[in-house]
Amino acid sequence: MRREFRTLYWRNSRLYLIDQKALPHRLRYVALSDYRQVAKAIKDMTVRGAPAIGVAAAYGLALAALKARGSDPLKVLERLQKAADVLRSTRPTAVNLFWAIERVMVRAEAAARDGEDVARAVLEEAHAIAEEDVKVNRAIGMHGAQLIRDGAKVMTYCNAGALATVGYGTALGVIRAAVEQGKRVFVYVPETRPKLQGARLTSFELKLEGIEHRVIPDNTAAYLMSRGEVDLVVVGADRILASSGHVINKIGTLSLAIAANHFNVPFYVAAPISTIDFRRTLSEVRIEERDEREVLEVMGRRIAPKGARAINYSFDVTPPSLVRGIITEKGIFGPTELYKLQPQ
Amino acid sequence: MRREFRTLYWRNSRLYLIDQKALPHRLRYVALSDYRQVAKAIKDMTVRGAPAIGVAAAYGLALAALKARGSDPLKVLERLQKAADVLRSTRPTAVNLFWAIERVMVRAEAAARDGEDVARAVLEEAHAIAEEDVKVNRAIGMHGAQLIRDGAKVMTYCNAGALATVGYGTALGVIRAAVEQGKRVFVYVPETRPKLQGARLTSFELKLEGIEHRVIPDNTAAYLMSRGEVDLVVVGADRILASSGHVINKIGTLSLAIAANHFNVPFYVAAPISTIDFRRTLSEVRIEERDEREVLEVMGRRIAPKGARAINYSFDVTPPSLVRGIITEKGIFGPTELYKLQPQ
Repeated sequence: MRREFRTLYWRNSRLYLIDQKALPHRLRYVALSDYRQVAKAIKDMTVRGAPAIGVAAAYGLALAALKARGSDPLKVLERLQKAADVLRSTRPTAVNLFWAIERVMVRAEAAARDGEDVARAVLEEAHAIAEEDVKVNRAIGMHGAQLIRDGAKVMTYCNAGALATVGYGTALGVIRAAVEQGKRVFVYVPETRPKLQGARLTSFELKLEGIEHRVIPDNTAAYLMSRGEVDLVVVGADRILASSGHVINKIGTLSLAIAANHFNVPFYVAAPISTIDFRRTLSEVRIEERDEREVLEVMGRRIAPKGARAINYSFDVTPPSLVRGIITEKGIFGPTELYKLQPQ
Repeated sequence: MRREFRTLYWRNSRLYLIDQKALPHRLRYVALSDYRQVAKAIKDMTVRGAPAIGVAAAYGLALAALKARGSDPLKVLERLQKAADVLRSTRPTAVNLFWAIERVMVRAEAAARDGEDVARAVLEEAHAIAEEDVKVNRAIGMHGAQLIRDGAKVMTYCNAGALATVGYGTALGVIRAAVEQGKRVFVYVPETRPKLQGARLTSFELKLEGIEHRVIPDNTAAYLMSRGEVDLVVVGADRILASSGHVINKIGTLSLAIAANHFNVPFYVAAPISTIDFRRTLSEVRIEERDEREVLEVMGRRIAPKGARAINYSFDVTPPSLVRGIITEKGIFGPTELYKLQPQ
């Protein structure tokens, strides 16, 4: 992937997103000019990945603020509150969404208070979050790359790559950084049912980068570990609880972590500090359940009998006992020492 | 499913098989009149499931013998040997295939020696194997049903049902027997990538039976266990090694067994004694690898980028330490006491 590749960017007062539903067969951007379109794009997974949906929501607020520009500041704030509510209601589990909205709203309120142009302030904050994302990912990559030896066989999961962020990626950023250091890395790519982010997106990114990899059914991971063919597992996260060290990530992560633990394969999570939830405990987190059809159909083809039903949890919960470390932009931490990272 | 439902049957010198590739959308039989067609049907999974492919191969030999009828007995035997070689080469892992072919060949040789009609003897033996299959499955069901309490939530895997056998099923036979005893049973059906035998076949059978169930992505099993929502796991097997107690079954079984063990969910294997390999050790068993396209395409739709590659092991190996018991037609045995079942 070229360095300037961006999952989303802002141009001429519009937010451009790669339509991730069309990948890997078509690479196309959609242009959004209203925050409701952004909310829809997050909900239907045109854009996905915890950091990416946070940035998309921030730009969604920028669209709302620009539309309200010219009204008095309190009116703009009111419109922004409404947009924030709509954007927060799109997906419940990834904390970055709430974190980014919160950060933009704090900035908007300060701007209104200080008599600044609220819309400009909101857009600046969205840009800042987007710019930081790539820098943070490079720092994560640098810290994580030390875990990968030359010739390593690394398993990732879902897509925690450039497409899940603004660019570079978290778990895939770790792999990218190792490759940039000249190490040879072979990557196992579990397909990640039901939405196939592994087969569709991670394979797409690795192919562009020329990094050797194989797609595997999710159920094949444990067998490869049992054969001694996996040196390390590194995945992303949608929310990590500082209170207990639980990692909430794409459904199937728990299964990988249990198998890795069983076979003594180091299991790491790569995520920015913005993915760490410093407030909530496990019982306060809602695990998203999505439409059963995502399981019962694949690429529009029905796989189960008519009338069959499915369970479709989007995320699961991995306990800290199964996690060797959390790779952040500030270094690698044990899952129960995340309180050290709490912003002052 | 009606009692008279048969995955395969013999009529007018032809073998009729349900075309399992067309399920769940179409229920249709194909009629085969040549052993090479049977070999192809086994290879391309028109018929699948360890017991079912054993019976299909036995009938394949009957087709070969009938075609050679009228030649002298040694000539018939020679033709049968050739057919046996072709049928053995179709799939390497399930032991029932080799067991059924061996059994028919022993009978054919005895018939030739004794001056009997070899073709008639071969057909009789194939019929006997098919009839025994249903009886054996009912006995497995009876023994296994005692493990299932009223109201239990049971997870199975792949399809170890009527469609994997001549009728009734092994793991699904256990569930059927519990339901016949009046127990309420809820079944989790992992879809079983890449060929989706769970979503396509097990869901089809359970729907016909009116047994409540939900299809789940394979990667969701561990999370359901972590929530305390699974009481028991029961799967089939393609080969069980008496020498060590290892269970060779559909890829993903190991992953389920590790998770079940981690969460203290009882993990059982249901299989006829004909699935037990009393001779070989683990290093002598070949784990089939199938075409990468089975992973890279779903129902004919490409899920990965052009040029992407995949790993496609059809089976994995579960060690005896993770298996609570093997449910056979002679009762439930620990995985390391299978030598007791060795035919004299």
